[in-house]
Amino acid sequence: MSKPTRGNLFVVGGAEDKERGKLILRRFLDAAGAEAARILVVATASARPEKLLADYESAFRELGASDIHLCYQEQRADAQDPAVIALLRQATGVYFTGGDQLKLVTTLGGTGFASALHDCYRSGLHIGGTSAGASAMSTVMIARGRGRSAPRLASVRLSPGLGILRRVIVDQHFQERDRIGRLMAAVLRNPYMLGFGIDEDTAFIVSPDGRVEVLGRGTLTIVDGAELIGSSIADMKENEPIAFAGMKVHVLGTGWEFQIGSRAITVPHHHHTPASASDLITTSTIPEGDTE
Amino acid sequence: MSKPTRGNLFVVGGAEDKERGKLILRRFLDAAGAEAARILVVATASARPEKLLADYESAFRELGASDIHLCYQEQRADAQDPAVIALLRQATGVYFTGGDQLKLVTTLGGTGFASALHDCYRSGLHIGGTSAGASAMSTVMIARGRGRSAPRLASVRLSPGLGILRRVIVDQHFQERDRIGRLMAAVLRNPYMLGFGIDEDTAFIVSPDGRVEVLGRGTLTIVDGAELIGSSIADMKENEPIAFAGMKVHVLGTGWEFQIGSRAITVPHHHHTPASASDLITTSTIPEGDTE
Repeated sequence: MSKPTRGNLFVVGGAEDKERGKLILRRFLDAAGAEAARILVVATASARPEKLLADYESAFRELGASDIHLCYQEQRADAQDPAVIALLRQATGVYFTGGDQLKLVTTLGGTGFASALHDCYRSGLHIGGTSAGASAMSTVMIARGRGRSAPRLASVRLSPGLGILRRVIVDQHFQERDRIGRLMAAVLRNPYMLGFGIDEDTAFIVSPDGRVEVLGRGTLTIVDGAELIGSSIADMKENEPIAFAGMKVHVLGTGWEFQIGSRAITVPHHHHTPASASDLITTSTIPEGDTE
Repeated sequence: MSKPTRGNLFVVGGAEDKERGKLILRRFLDAAGAEAARILVVATASARPEKLLADYESAFRELGASDIHLCYQEQRADAQDPAVIALLRQATGVYFTGGDQLKLVTTLGGTGFASALHDCYRSGLHIGGTSAGASAMSTVMIARGRGRSAPRLASVRLSPGLGILRRVIVDQHFQERDRIGRLMAAVLRNPYMLGFGIDEDTAFIVSPDGRVEVLGRGTLTIVDGAELIGSSIADMKENEPIAFAGMKVHVLGTGWEFQIGSRAITVPHHHHTPASASDLITTSTIPEGDTE
């Protein structure tokens, strides 16, 4: 018997289309078995789960799924309920809605449900998470943060996440809420971690081999601190600007790929050459002097 | 007779302190000869120059200068006035106020005043420019742009600047107005150009040898596209997100240095080691697997 393969992980930036083409949900459902899929939607992050659950149920139903279960754990005891854990173990795809990632993680973390989630993912369960459900996927999670902030210690509060996605800190609603500063602040705390900022109605899909693909209307911003040559973070107060050198930033769209292990990027063929000349200026017309 | 040396260039992010310690203006005045300096303040960028000119006059006077001239060119003909050009030729330091960089450049560009400015800078005149006066220093200038925008073609409108600072596109009020997206968009148009985003009450000082030093309360963000391995910019519509890979970002504070020619960074000694561990996680406790 061959070793079971992990499932795919769909990390969605929030506000994914649930009414028209449903590109992301369709792709998730296809991975989970299309019409034969057994879907479990988890709205535990939300304070008002009823409408959310109904919306996802009708979206997946419109896409052809018929075996759809909905759940909401109000308290930690609910996440020990064998009936719900059985639903998870039977599912081929589980999808975590938006809400508050701290609510999601504090309710599920360390329960039988979370433990089964890891087991099932290892054996092939496909997992999706959007908005708060996206943030919660990582080992180190952005629990709170300030949008539109330059990198400062106070830009983010980190917390342990559900640990499905390691080596990556996820941020969502990314370009829409201008979160590059806070994602940089998170990566500066430990440049071993990659920062992945995913836009609304956009997903990154992590394959079992660590390959990352981008799907949807927006982009995936990757902040990579592996080549940092210096950082003032350890000496800074909460609200002082952090100085650093050598942070790499990639903004990937449809057709681009990234390997989490090697940090290698695959550029779509037609985008391979960087723009070499603008309408204003070419390298050949500028002398080598720095200034003047 | 030795070859004359260029002056220093002070590029200021706007809102520099003019009332208390006046760190930046003091340093500018010191470069220009301290109490022996002959200062010319140019408020041509501004729509209401009187108050601005008065504020700079009293600031420089409080710092010990006595030879201070103020000018404002309302139209291009004023920038051909030999009397004002003579003032510029006698000055040891000229300082350009804020306002609208397009107004500044369209009034001065191609005039006798602009031509003399280049001559004098080559022979040792120290030049300062703040806010609009900072933007106008570069060869390729950000004329208009959207703050808080992810990189898109529509994020910036470029225009020719006064051409004192080559190979660098300047943006100001930088962290305060979250302008990293538009600066990236400018650099993506031609990765030969460096993007320098300077914060309020902060200056970068360019020495004749291309060495860049940071002075003041905030930071200098440098966007370097030299190692870009791909970009979708040439295929994008005005408002589509640009995808790219390999952009480098540095955020430098007091004590950090940058060389425009070699793009080398000098890290202050105590910040040389990147932060290697956060309070949550260390590299040794995370297995090498990508996800799960």
